[in-house]
Amino acid sequence: MLELDCTALTPAEVLQTSGHVEKFADWMCKDPKNGDILRADHFVEDILESRLRGDKEARGVKIVEEEEDPSKKKKKKKTKGIEAVKLDDAVVQEYEEILAKIDNYNGEELGQLIKKYEMKNPETGMEPSAPVAFNLMFQTTIGPSSNTPGYLRPETAQGQFLNFAKLLEYNQQQMPFASASIGKSYRNEISPRGGLLRVREFLMAEIEHFVDPEGGKKHDRFNDVKDVELVLLNRHTQLAGKTDVEKMAIGKAVENGTVDNETLGYFLARIQLFLAKIGVDQSKVRFRQHMANEMAHYAADCWDAELHTSSGWVECVGCADRSAYDLSVHAKKTGAPLMVRQRLDTPITIEEWQIDLDKKKFGPKFKKDGKAVEAAIEALSQEKRESFAKELKDNGKIVIEVDGIADGKAEVGADLIKIELRTRVENTREYTPNVIEPSFGIGRILYALMEHNYWTRGSEGGDEARGVLSFPPIVAPTKVLLVPLSSHESFKPFLKQISYKLRSMGVSSRVDDSSASIGKRYSRNDELGTPLGITVDFQSVNDSTFTLRDRDSTKQVRASQEKILAAIKELVDGTKVWADIEKELPIFEGQEAELPAR
Amino acid sequence: MLELDCTALTPAEVLQTSGHVEKFADWMCKDPKNGDILRADHFVEDILESRLRGDKEARGVKIVEEEEDPSKKKKKKKTKGIEAVKLDDAVVQEYEEILAKIDNYNGEELGQLIKKYEMKNPETGMEPSAPVAFNLMFQTTIGPSSNTPGYLRPETAQGQFLNFAKLLEYNQQQMPFASASIGKSYRNEISPRGGLLRVREFLMAEIEHFVDPEGGKKHDRFNDVKDVELVLLNRHTQLAGKTDVEKMAIGKAVENGTVDNETLGYFLARIQLFLAKIGVDQSKVRFRQHMANEMAHYAADCWDAELHTSSGWVECVGCADRSAYDLSVHAKKTGAPLMVRQRLDTPITIEEWQIDLDKKKFGPKFKKDGKAVEAAIEALSQEKRESFAKELKDNGKIVIEVDGIADGKAEVGADLIKIELRTRVENTREYTPNVIEPSFGIGRILYALMEHNYWTRGSEGGDEARGVLSFPPIVAPTKVLLVPLSSHESFKPFLKQISYKLRSMGVSSRVDDSSASIGKRYSRNDELGTPLGITVDFQSVNDSTFTLRDRDSTKQVRASQEKILAAIKELVDGTKVWADIEKELPIFEGQEAELPAR
Repeated sequence: MLELDCTALTPAEVLQTSGHVEKFADWMCKDPKNGDILRADHFVEDILESRLRGDKEARGVKIVEEEEDPSKKKKKKKTKGIEAVKLDDAVVQEYEEILAKIDNYNGEELGQLIKKYEMKNPETGMEPSAPVAFNLMFQTTIGPSSNTPGYLRPETAQGQFLNFAKLLEYNQQQMPFASASIGKSYRNEISPRGGLLRVREFLMAEIEHFVDPEGGKKHDRFNDVKDVELVLLNRHTQLAGKTDVEKMAIGKAVENGTVDNETLGYFLARIQLFLAKIGVDQSKVRFRQHMANEMAHYAADCWDAELHTSSGWVECVGCADRSAYDLSVHAKKTGAPLMVRQRLDTPITIEEWQIDLDKKKFGPKFKKDGKAVEAAIEALSQEKRESFAKELKDNGKIVIEVDGIADGKAEVGADLIKIELRTRVENTREYTPNVIEPSFGIGRILYALMEHNYWTRGSEGGDEARGVLSFPPIVAPTKVLLVPLSSHESFKPFLKQISYKLRSMGVSSRVDDSSASIGKRYSRNDELGTPLGITVDFQSVNDSTFTLRDRDSTKQVRASQEKILAAIKELVDGTKVWADIEKELPIFEGQEAELPAR
Repeated sequence: MLELDCTALTPAEVLQTSGHVEKFADWMCKDPKNGDILRADHFVEDILESRLRGDKEARGVKIVEEEEDPSKKKKKKKTKGIEAVKLDDAVVQEYEEILAKIDNYNGEELGQLIKKYEMKNPETGMEPSAPVAFNLMFQTTIGPSSNTPGYLRPETAQGQFLNFAKLLEYNQQQMPFASASIGKSYRNEISPRGGLLRVREFLMAEIEHFVDPEGGKKHDRFNDVKDVELVLLNRHTQLAGKTDVEKMAIGKAVENGTVDNETLGYFLARIQLFLAKIGVDQSKVRFRQHMANEMAHYAADCWDAELHTSSGWVECVGCADRSAYDLSVHAKKTGAPLMVRQRLDTPITIEEWQIDLDKKKFGPKFKKDGKAVEAAIEALSQEKRESFAKELKDNGKIVIEVDGIADGKAEVGADLIKIELRTRVENTREYTPNVIEPSFGIGRILYALMEHNYWTRGSEGGDEARGVLSFPPIVAPTKVLLVPLSSHESFKPFLKQISYKLRSMGVSSRVDDSSASIGKRYSRNDELGTPLGITVDFQSVNDSTFTLRDRDSTKQVRASQEKILAAIKELVDGTKVWADIEKELPIFEGQEAELPAR
């Protein structure tokens, strides 16, 4: 993969060409009383969800919140304010069906839903205005003369497309290949909310994989991932107003056509493996296919990896088949050859109906219509050419339809035109690659990861329950906590030495030498997600051994500095897990009044 | 150092408070004929430089261009267009003095220079308009309602200042400490130029080191760097119209006051060590101190690490002492406590003159002036209080000046006021930290690095000279090139295996299996800066040995895969250099018709 870094500032022409200036918009309504601006789909969603909750309450259905949901309290509160109103069974079903395909409505349809179901803004009791499109791009002016408009990029993809010819050259004209970019994108969200879930400036990691559209978009390494199982929610299920999922190996999903092609399937599987590796709760992942109206203007097919959070299912990774859309529009606008020229091993012999015109006679005969008649002839399909060839042979003339001239048609005699079946040999083939785009929203993934990995260690002996953030070592920002038993001077050289060694190993560490008890220091760093801890105690001063502590089990081992550092390296690299270390190094008990394990 | 990532989109208030809305501007002129917009200081610089070149030409002085300067041809061309006009010796000296302090002029002064020396835009022959300030920030609107103006950040620093209280908390209230941020900044440059040297969107890496302003801004690890030698161009030399530098150990520079304090000196030395490590030509580095008018509005002192390029000396790293400026203005505006509360080990006993007022009697006596009189009394300095105490004792009353009341003064009798010398014990001390800010312009450093490391290998036997980019392994984007001798099938498994092993070692590699000769493939990758190459040949297939090639010397060694990979790891980590490897592993000659070494 070729990594590149493009600018966020983008001349307006680029985003006009890509279609973003016209189409990259959300639907917004205005409250006529207080002027509040509401995002139309969120408004409809919120109202229907709150009515359904009211219905459940009226029916005496207990609203079950997930056990480990950290936003539990907040949700309970929200539920309290809802009026318990029983709905007809038919209405409940209608609401549920609307919600299942909420992303499929356009502005007009959202407006109709608001009217039909008499939705009012709870703040004012007023029906909001009809939805209007609001472009989500931030606009600015580039240069000192104020006449060059520009936008902040809404995605990192466009810079990669604009550089396609350079990328292909750098890849020595070999296909398929991918470029990748990590950087900020900007969307002027109508109502940012949910912490990192919906923000106006966010970190994206986008891969653009360029593939030959012919031959079924096969992928070389598809076989490596074909047994990876995904939880799929396809388009048809959603359009039927349902949300039932199927668990399926990606090999089978591509085989039975649920997922369109191997390349798309390969990346879906890699996304699944990535999410598992960084510690996403596997029971909270699903891949949801976009419905037709929901898809971005450039997409031919799209699946989102959605992660379940306290805000419901959240799109965290998109994987779209952008077809040849972007490269085609940019090539057309700029004239730059954003295409691949493939040398054919066996030249192709093409048999086709070719037309020869006696252009000198065209002017005198057709006068000002000459050009139009000529263009109409050149544009004839192979089928038409074949039938005209016969007609010409039979009648000595043909009559063809020509737009924009007096009669709407023109008679062309055999003296002017010749149509013959001939063969032509092609040594190269030109094509515009299709693009498969896995697009990662880093902030959203991180947010879900925090929810999925946060839990509370039960209290014993009346202690308060304490939070633990079980980030896998690979994601934890700080890998190792260094804690001296006390502020005793004799511990300091060891802390300095171990810090230094960890730094040269490329392992991040942090010293907590505050005066809090060692248990408290461990406990607060458990909540920060630090997976490992080294304690420097009086025994360390005597025999240069140290304890290594595992955050999740709170178990400790004790060994020489060398062995402890080697164990850390293996845990951080992921070549071993804590259970392995426990078997290899002597267990240590003591020193810390420990809380019960997970 | 605490790394953090803040937004580029910044509400206008933040940059109003920091002073950027008012002061972050360059001076621009307009050509009255063609409307061209010119950056005033660059315009003056260009005109004077071209006149000086014309003078040299007239005097028959050969204009010596540096041998290895890649932009040689371009410069020559530029010189050609210049009229050979001899100047008076006095004028030459004036011009040189102006150029030495070009960064010290404000807009009015630049306008005077343009008039005085009759500078015309070469494009039109017209004198440009008087310079006006042009704010360099990109403006946009945040949110859907169009009434929240914002700017793209012109530096990454402000986000770090705004988060100071959180950072201090995260650092457990301990001082000194630093935060660091790597990210894009945006400046709407009047005329971008010189490739990566002046662009409107650029990558910065900024460290904000927070330090106690008392005690001379000492630094714990200053001793580690005190012998590092820097080439210094101080403020006084420049103001005298000169550019003479001095080479000095940083320890001495701080001692003799050339560099203000240890913390500033520590970071200057670290910048020097960093630049050396990444491969900057040591004869092309100098540290230039800012002159008073040149300094940014927030800076108390500033040194730039300048690198010499084909565009002259270019500021690549700035190191400013921002004093308490930013934290103070933000704290004042928002009321947030951006300060440090230091617990004193030994409480301070303060002896001071304290005032007690009988406030109940104030109203009846002074009526509407009561508040003003009270405020004037509270504001009295310790010295005034002492003398008033004496006066009160002697005369039973004092007369104090009060702004904004009828008489301008008020008589206060001993029945209303008591002034006594008392002692007070302080357990904490509050202060606003000062900030030392090393700020790296990554694009500029990279540009200079490319110029400094690009050279051509001499031709032998009529071959064309070939470019080599001698990036040190630590900076080279690709560390290892893998080249199969030919496209023979038997080489492929080795390429795959070695690629895989390098990837798991964290070493980037790239395969060049094109049909070009092996010499040509090496040569073109030399130009891309790849420091090491592994060749897979028929001997590899037989005995699993491979050759490892050094880009700069073109020397090769041959050994087992294991030994070759170990050597690569050591070279890439910087624990060994090529000369070490040549001593350890057998030299290999053959296979490649090699070009002569550097």
